[in-house]
Amino acid sequence: MTQLAAPGEGITYEELQLATRNRGMPLEGLRYDVTPVGLHYLLVHFDIPAVDPDTWRLAIDGAVATPLHLTLDDVRSRPARTVPVTLECAGNGRARLSPRPISQPWLLEAVGTAEWTGTPLRGILDDAGLGDDVVDVVFTGADRGVQGDLEQAYQRALPPSEALRDEVMLVYEMNGRPLEPQHGFPLRLIVPGWYGMTHVKWLTRIEAMTTPFAGYQHEAYRYIQAEGEQGEPVTRMKVRALMVPPGVPDFFTRTRLVGPGIVPITGRAWCGTAPVARVEVGVDGEWREAVLGAATGPWAWRQWSFDWEASRGDHVVMCRATDANGNTQPVEQPWNLNGMGNNLVQEVRVQVR
Amino acid sequence: MTQLAAPGEGITYEELQLATRNRGMPLEGLRYDVTPVGLHYLLVHFDIPAVDPDTWRLAIDGAVATPLHLTLDDVRSRPARTVPVTLECAGNGRARLSPRPISQPWLLEAVGTAEWTGTPLRGILDDAGLGDDVVDVVFTGADRGVQGDLEQAYQRALPPSEALRDEVMLVYEMNGRPLEPQHGFPLRLIVPGWYGMTHVKWLTRIEAMTTPFAGYQHEAYRYIQAEGEQGEPVTRMKVRALMVPPGVPDFFTRTRLVGPGIVPITGRAWCGTAPVARVEVGVDGEWREAVLGAATGPWAWRQWSFDWEASRGDHVVMCRATDANGNTQPVEQPWNLNGMGNNLVQEVRVQVR
Repeated sequence: MTQLAAPGEGITYEELQLATRNRGMPLEGLRYDVTPVGLHYLLVHFDIPAVDPDTWRLAIDGAVATPLHLTLDDVRSRPARTVPVTLECAGNGRARLSPRPISQPWLLEAVGTAEWTGTPLRGILDDAGLGDDVVDVVFTGADRGVQGDLEQAYQRALPPSEALRDEVMLVYEMNGRPLEPQHGFPLRLIVPGWYGMTHVKWLTRIEAMTTPFAGYQHEAYRYIQAEGEQGEPVTRMKVRALMVPPGVPDFFTRTRLVGPGIVPITGRAWCGTAPVARVEVGVDGEWREAVLGAATGPWAWRQWSFDWEASRGDHVVMCRATDANGNTQPVEQPWNLNGMGNNLVQEVRVQVR
Repeated sequence: MTQLAAPGEGITYEELQLATRNRGMPLEGLRYDVTPVGLHYLLVHFDIPAVDPDTWRLAIDGAVATPLHLTLDDVRSRPARTVPVTLECAGNGRARLSPRPISQPWLLEAVGTAEWTGTPLRGILDDAGLGDDVVDVVFTGADRGVQGDLEQAYQRALPPSEALRDEVMLVYEMNGRPLEPQHGFPLRLIVPGWYGMTHVKWLTRIEAMTTPFAGYQHEAYRYIQAEGEQGEPVTRMKVRALMVPPGVPDFFTRTRLVGPGIVPITGRAWCGTAPVARVEVGVDGEWREAVLGAATGPWAWRQWSFDWEASRGDHVVMCRATDANGNTQPVEQPWNLNGMGNNLVQEVRVQVR
């Protein structure tokens, strides 16, 4: 059951515990096409497990013709590909909501793009032979903990139509090196386009089920307005643009300081359902078109830029993206009880002097 | 001027902005002798600067016989060594103080140990020829911002007696790879034993001064009880032990759950002034001796372990280290106005059931 903090109420000790162990990407990290491993956002739901790669096995079982038990070498010897993919936490923006759903209190920084190397999941599922009556494929990680009074391994499911997509991968390298422990060593699932909770880390089992999966994490990741509602599941990333805050920061307030004249503003935009079609920059409420650059890849963010003619004084600079389906980031908060998918536009306070 | 939050008062928006961009090491990271790059703690005072390694130069000037301007290749062609060093933020533990000094709100996790590769600073200072009248060596980073209403580059100084220590290095690799941008690419200072603010990142200049350096960051890092006091400077890391929280976590409260029986507890301990001589584990206030293991290196943390015979019920597990000079971690907060060097013992709530 999600608790709410009243408008203006400070961050609780429990939220701070989560904030100091999970890791955002400082927004100047948007400068890199591919995020350095040590700058990529990281949310660890329970704990980072210690996995011994020599004894580790991946089980593929349930409603399959041929259950498989793969070693890491088995996985690594399969056809490989490397794809840049942007990942964002579904809770990104949660702490900007009012009233505030109490959980990991992200502001804007739970995002990153890495080059993931691995093997298509489809090939493995084809080798195992998914039954025709399979409705969910359940992915289990080695991380365990308690949530909703239930001790559990972290688990998420995908319907076969998603699991069999060509671009879904089991990955063992990030930016050309073996996964570091916190990013899912030895093997994690990558489902391009989806929010981060789907990319199950420390994979141990893939189970084909003939009945719908109703695990805890599927209940938690839904768009609802009140307890007890059914709502819609959280799936793909909504459209979003972020900018590198221009100029230099004040250490404490993070207000930005720049000189007057042309201030180049750059950032990245991404969307899990359609290509990014447009980015606008708003200065003091007046919106202008940004110039779109190249995408880092078909499943990764796209660069954009804007030359701001800055005049002396205090300003608020915003940015917003629109996808090819016409979905635009909101300027009013898209509130929901669990604080999911809040793509409210970024606001940066800038002093020009 | 440091603001204080009253006991029990929630974390402010400004503190949260800092918490979501700076990065702690989840405490299960204590399991690794050498912290993976993407798990190492990170505090970026202003912004991560974009440094072009081709045009970057390191100036060594001021009161020296021969000013030097070194390229990155110049630095890399000098004698090299690789040393594991534990770094901890001077503000680690700040948010556990009451009343709470308002700044980056670390709880316990601002620590990490990396293998740093670089060249001894002493050789470079010898080549430049420090004047006999030098009292401070000032290190300037490429990161800029505003603090105390003053726009400034990040700067810290060391007296020659510290700067010329054999183990002080200018490093260009971390864990065998070029520094990632957020850890100081292309070159950072490493001063084994000192708190993190001393290990200046993105170095651009080393200036020998014949008058004492009085930069902003030296005023900020002092142990004082009230504004206007002189106090003592923050220098070396106080003794501290941390444990890997045992068992599995509750997602939200981070309370730990274990079964009854022998529960192995492990952790690391370090100190910047003397070797770690002793670690104790306290269960519900009763302290017992832990077993000390090997240190990762002379300037790095030391492993320890303890077998806890856990009985059903709710327990509080603590750990504390003592150094070879007899300094022990306090069980009452060592409060100071800027929230520096708080090595109050860790407390972990554990349910045995």
